[in-house]
Order: sequence, then structure tokens, then C-alpha cells
Amino acid sequence: MKSDRYQRGLKKLIEMEGSMGKEVIRKMEEISPDFAQYLVEFVFGDIYSRPGLDLKTKEIITLSSMVTLGTAPLQVKVHVNTALNVGCTEQEIIEVMLQTIPSAGFAAAMNGLLIAKEVFDERKNK
Amino acid sequence: MKSDRYQRGLKKLIEMEGSMGKEVIRKMEEISPDFAQYLVEFVFGDIYSRPGLDLKTKEIITLSSMVTLGTAPLQVKVHVNTALNVGCTEQEIIEVMLQTIPSAGFAAAMNGLLIAKEVFDERKNK
Amino acid sequence: MKSDRYQRGLKKLIEMEGSMGKEVIRKMEEISPDFAQYLVEFVFGDIYSRPGLDLKTKEIITLSSMVTLGTAPLQVKVHVNTALNVGCTEQEIIEVMLQTIPSAGFAAAMNGLLIAKEVFDERKNK
Amino acid sequence: MKSDRYQRGLKKLIEMEGSMGKEVIRKMEEISPDFAQYLVEFVFGDIYSRPGLDLKTKEIITLSSMVTLGTAPLQVKVHVNTALNVGCTEQEIIEVMLQTIPSAGFAAAMNGLLIAKEVFDERKNK
Amino acid sequence: MKSDRYQRGLKKLIEMEGSMGKEVIRKMEEISPDFAQYLVEFVFGDIYSRPGLDLKTKEIITLSSMVTLGTAPLQVKVHVNTALNVGCTEQEIIEVMLQTIPSAGFAAAMNGLLIAKEVFDERKNK
Amino acid sequence: MKSDRYQRGLKKLIEMEGSMGKEVIRKMEEISPDFAQYLVEFVFGDIYSRPGLDLKTKEIITLSSMVTLGTAPLQVKVHVNTALNVGCTEQEIIEVMLQTIPSAGFAAAMNGLLIAKEVFDERKNK
Repeated sequence: MKSDRYQRGLKKLIEMEGSMGKEVIRKMEEISPDFAQYLVEFVFGDIYSRPGLDLKTKEIITLSSMVTLGTAPLQVKVHVNTALNVGCTEQEIIEVMLQTIPSAGFAAAMNGLLIAKEVFDERKNK
Repeated sequence: MKSDRYQRGLKKLIEMEGSMGKEVIRKMEEISPDFAQYLVEFVFGDIYSRPGLDLKTKEIITLSSMVTLGTAPLQVKVHVNTALNVGCTEQEIIEVMLQTIPSAGFAAAMNGLLIAKEVFDERKNK
Repeated sequence: MKSDRYQRGLKKLIEMEGSMGKEVIRKMEEISPDFAQYLVEFVFGDIYSRPGLDLKTKEIITLSSMVTLGTAPLQVKVHVNTALNVGCTEQEIIEVMLQTIPSAGFAAAMNGLLIAKEVFDERKNK
Repeated sequence: MKSDRYQRGLKKLIEMEGSMGKEVIRKMEEISPDFAQYLVEFVFGDIYSRPGLDLKTKEIITLSSMVTLGTAPLQVKVHVNTALNVGCTEQEIIEVMLQTIPSAGFAAAMNGLLIAKEVFDERKNK
Repeated sequence: MKSDRYQRGLKKLIEMEGSMGKEVIRKMEEISPDFAQYLVEFVFGDIYSRPGLDLKTKEIITLSSMVTLGTAPLQVKVHVNTALNVGCTEQEIIEVMLQTIPSAGFAAAMNGLLIAKEVFDERKNK
Repeated sequence: MKSDRYQRGLKKLIEMEGSMGKEVIRKMEEISPDFAQYLVEFVFGDIYSRPGLDLKTKEIITLSSMVTLGTAPLQVKVHVNTALNVGCTEQEIIEVMLQTIPSAGFAAAMNGLLIAKEVFDERKNK
């Protein structure tokens, strides 16, 4: 029996990421079911389910944070997709990357833009 | 004679940060006039003057990036102030910090919240 | 009504950090009650309450991670205290810092050692 | 004539990493023999040869530090192998990754888990 | 009509990086023409065009910074090439990497050396 | 009896940092004599004693790396002093900070410049 937080998180995850999100969860369940559960419950059931900011703004915050880290190309890819799913335009995602130049530097922003382009192209070719 | 980019950047800086921004520029001019010029021209004249995202969203991106870095408490303080100046509520700034927990960790978000509280209190006591 | 995870987390927090931990929670509740709740529920109720590793090993992992980040001096201070509370000796804490030199560099380890010394001295003078 | 520190370091390296460790040294000797020497002498002859913590605890510290960095996937892979060699179970390695979530974030821990899984599978298929 | 800063930057970029630099600009123009413009104008037209340090020293600073970041393998590759173009020897580049060990750690320096070797080999095989 | 590497390192440390360097070693010996020994032997006896780059270039590399880290203000302060001791001018140190803007971002460079200014002023007032 999954917790209410899990149910809420899974619903939010599917709303935001669709089958791609479910695939991430399935893959992580193979390695560590508890990690997968924390991801659904805490990240999606607690944090992304908060009121106060709309999903588009939340994805913009996540993209900015992950592009700044520079260590999470896989996750940037997922969140560029998610950002598009929740209503960001391609140009807005590019603007997020450009806005990180002053704080995170040109290399971080460039690597973010290269991943964004990859996602834009993949979605066009589907 | 200052460039057009400088004029545009200084106007944007004052619009966003008021006297606090001018004070930062004055302080940096003492150390390196060229750094101060790049800050005005590139960060404010080029990046913050871009169309495509409103100032509130730009400040949210900057806050997320700087809280994630964790190395810029001085700049987080300035940008919490700036975010309030351009229309963010205190609660929205807190939401930005909470939204960075999954990517940047609890310590980064906690340190961001502690600085935000400091700014909120300072503004109340003025 | 607090959740079971909160009850379990608070008990774990007090077991590990005593009044210092409660003070952190009280301070964060002033800024963001939800952050304080996530800290108790997720960090202490979920992660620190996991079986599989003893509390001493968990604190060693946390110290290594936070010394490597280099951005969380406040939290390193809390966790040096906590490590001592759950059975680490001062020498073991110093060994953790020395073991981070190859991966995190001399400056990170040195800053960790300086904080550890501060905590050791404070506890002696109480 | 190699120094005593080199002899001690090489013995420790082989004890911990076996042929994989020797291969890393051979590869680095091609690029910079001095780097290879520092790695053997300082990292293995000085740091990993210290008394005070057992090898298993040292590997746990290294894994926590490198997963937190997020910039060293190659080295995380080597050290997941080494951790298994010195007595960590797969489940304990997974616990290390989970314990880094609060400080290093979900993306760092997830990337650590993905590498751990890759190593676990490679060792099963040998 | 491109600005004077763009003209100066493009000339500096070609002086330093040749066709490889032009290829980077072309690629980034496809994703975000404004990013490409900032790269030419600000990074090459403003920063790399400054008097005060020779190009070799500037590339050494950039390599040290990017190896320390650890998040920019693509850019380290470009700048190892550029460093060789502006007069660094292979051995000097290796020395830069070794000099980052104390501050950035062995993993960062090792990853820098592995990329340097890759560039050295590619240039030999051309 | 101290090793040859220690003797060579201590001589190099004193050549570069004078009484300030000896004070750092004395302070670290109080916390962890082994850390102090590694610092003298490895950092100064091995790395800073290498031929191939002059001391001025080595300090420029260290400053770039530490400003990029952003987590070592204490060490940046020591190395700004050291850079001046080994022949860098104040303007050259400022140039190093400006050259890190593209890779490390404006906040990192600004924080480096603020520390540099502090050191310049202290040395003027002595």
C-alpha cells in the first residue's frame, strides 16, 4: 500500500513528465526501490505539489539550479522536456540558460544550451 | 563617454536595485573599474535587459542559481532584495529556496532561507 | 497532528543532536515551517532512520559530503557535534577530514579541520 | 629506485583495487609519470595507509565525497569496485548514496546509484 | 552590422582558436545567436582582448578554472588546444593540471590530464 | 627527524609565504600534525617545488582555481599575499580575477576581487 504522498507524487510526476517520468522511476526501482519512493514522495509529492508557484516557474527554478550544478546532464535533459510539457516555450528555456551566464559562467550555460538543442531536435523528429 | 550598453545597464540596475545597486558599483569601481563596467554593461545592459522573460522571473532564476552555488552569500542577499523590489513576495522567495532542495540539497536551501530571513528583517526595521 | 514520519524524525533528531537540533528546527520554523517539517520528516524520519548503516557511519558520510561541498560551514559545525554525540572520537573526525584531501582538495579539508577544532574547543569549555 | 612511500602505496593500491588499480597507474604513467607517482605515494602510501579508520570506512568516505562532487564518474566507478573489494556489500554502497541525498541532492545521489548499478552488473557478468 | 567589440572578439577568437573556434560559434549560433554573440563580444572582445596578461597566461588561468570546475570537459578540450596554439608546450599544460591537485583534488586533475592526452594524441594523428 | 621532502617544502613555504606561511603550519599542527606535514611535504615539497613553471605562474594557477571553487576565502587571502610576494603586481592579480569571469561567473570573480582589495589595503597599512 503506497502512501498518500506517493499517490499525489506519482500523479504529479505523470502530469509533468508523462511516460518519460515513469521510465525514470522504473529504472531507479531496479537499483533502489527506496530511492524511487523518495523521488516520488518527496520531490513530486511534497515539493512539486506545493502551492505558491505554478509548474512552469518550478521547472524554471529546477533548470537554473541544475544548469548551475553542471553535474546533471541526464537530469537537465529530463527537465528541458518537462519544462516544455508544462508550458515553457523553447525560447523561454533558452532565456533561462542565458540568464544563468552571470552567476554560473559561460561553460555551464553553453552545456545547458547544447542539451536543450538535443531535446528540441528529438521532439521534432518524433 | 559611457557606451549605450552602459547607459542601458545602469538604468536597469537602478530600476532593479536602486541605491543598493549603485553602492555595489561604486565599491567595485574602487577595486577594478573594468569589473564594474562589465557588471553594468554585460550583466545589466545585455542579460537583464533582454526581452523574453519578465524581471521577476529573471530574479527567480538568479536566486536559484546562486543558492545552488552556495558560494555567494553576499550576492544572494542583494538578489533577495532585488527580487522583492521587482515584485516577488516574501513567500515566493521562500518557495524558490524550497524548490532548490531536490537539486541543491537541504544545506544550500537552508543557507538561502537564512539569508532571506535576514533581508526580510532588515527591510522591516528600516 | 504531526505525521508518523515527523514523530520518528523528531525522536531521531533529538537522539542525535539533542537541544542543538531542536534549536535548528525552532529557528527554521520561524522562517519556513514547511522547510523545518521536511528536515524532520525526510532527513531525520526517512534517511537517518534507515536501517543498514549505524548512526556513526551515517554521520561520517554526511561530514565527508559537507566538507566536500565546502559551502556549509554552519552545517559542518552541527554535524561535527552530532558525530561526537553518536560515538565518533575527535581523532576519527580528524581522520574523516584527512581522507577527503585526495578527492576534495587541501582547502576543503583544512576548512573542515578548522571547524572541527572550534567544536572540540567549545565542548571542552562547556 | 622507488621510495618507501611508493612501495607502501603500491601494496595498498593492489590490496584495495587489484589489477584495475594497476591499470589506472599504467594509464596515468603514459600521460604524466609524476601524477602517477603522487597518486601512489600520497593517496595510497600516505592517506589510505593511515591507521585510525578501516579500509571499508575510508572507501565510504571517498564514495560520499566523490558522489557529492558529481564531476568524477570514472573515479566513482573505480571506488564502487574498491568498496566491494574491501568488504562493503552492494546494499551498503546503495545506503551511502541514499545518505548523500540531503547534503548533495537527488541528482548527485541518482547519478551515483546509476554508476553503482553499472558496476554491480559488470561484476555479475564476469 | 556587427559591433566593434564583435569584430575585435572574432579576430581574437580566430587568432587563438582558428577554425575550431569558428566551428563553436557556428554551432552555438544555431541554438542561440545571442549566446554566440555574447561569447564573441564579451569573452573574446572584452576579456581575452584585455592588455595586462599575455594570451598564454590567460589560457593557463582558464585551464586552471575549468579543470577546477570539473563540469566542462568539452571546454577543457577546446582550451587545451587553444593553449597549445598560443604557445604553451604539452609539458606546461601537464604542469597546470598538476598544480591544481592541492586545490581541486586528484580526480579533477586526473580528468584534466586525460582530456589533455586525448588532445595531444589527436594533434599528433592529424 | 623530518624528511627531505619536509625540509624542501618548508624552505619553499618560507620563500613564498614568509611568517604568514609558518603561522598557518603552526595553527594546523595544533589541530592535526599530519595535515600540517602533508601540506608542507606534498603541497610545498612536491608540487610547488616542481620545475617547469615559475612561482608566479604557479600562484596564478592557484588563485584561478581557488577563486573558481569559491569555498576558500581564507586560502584566497593567503595566496593573494603569496602572489604579491613572488612577484605578481596588484594589477596582475586583478587581471587573474577578471579572466575567471567567463568560466566561474561574476559572483566568484567579485568575491575574489573583494578579498584581493582587503589584502592590498592591509599591506598598505602595515
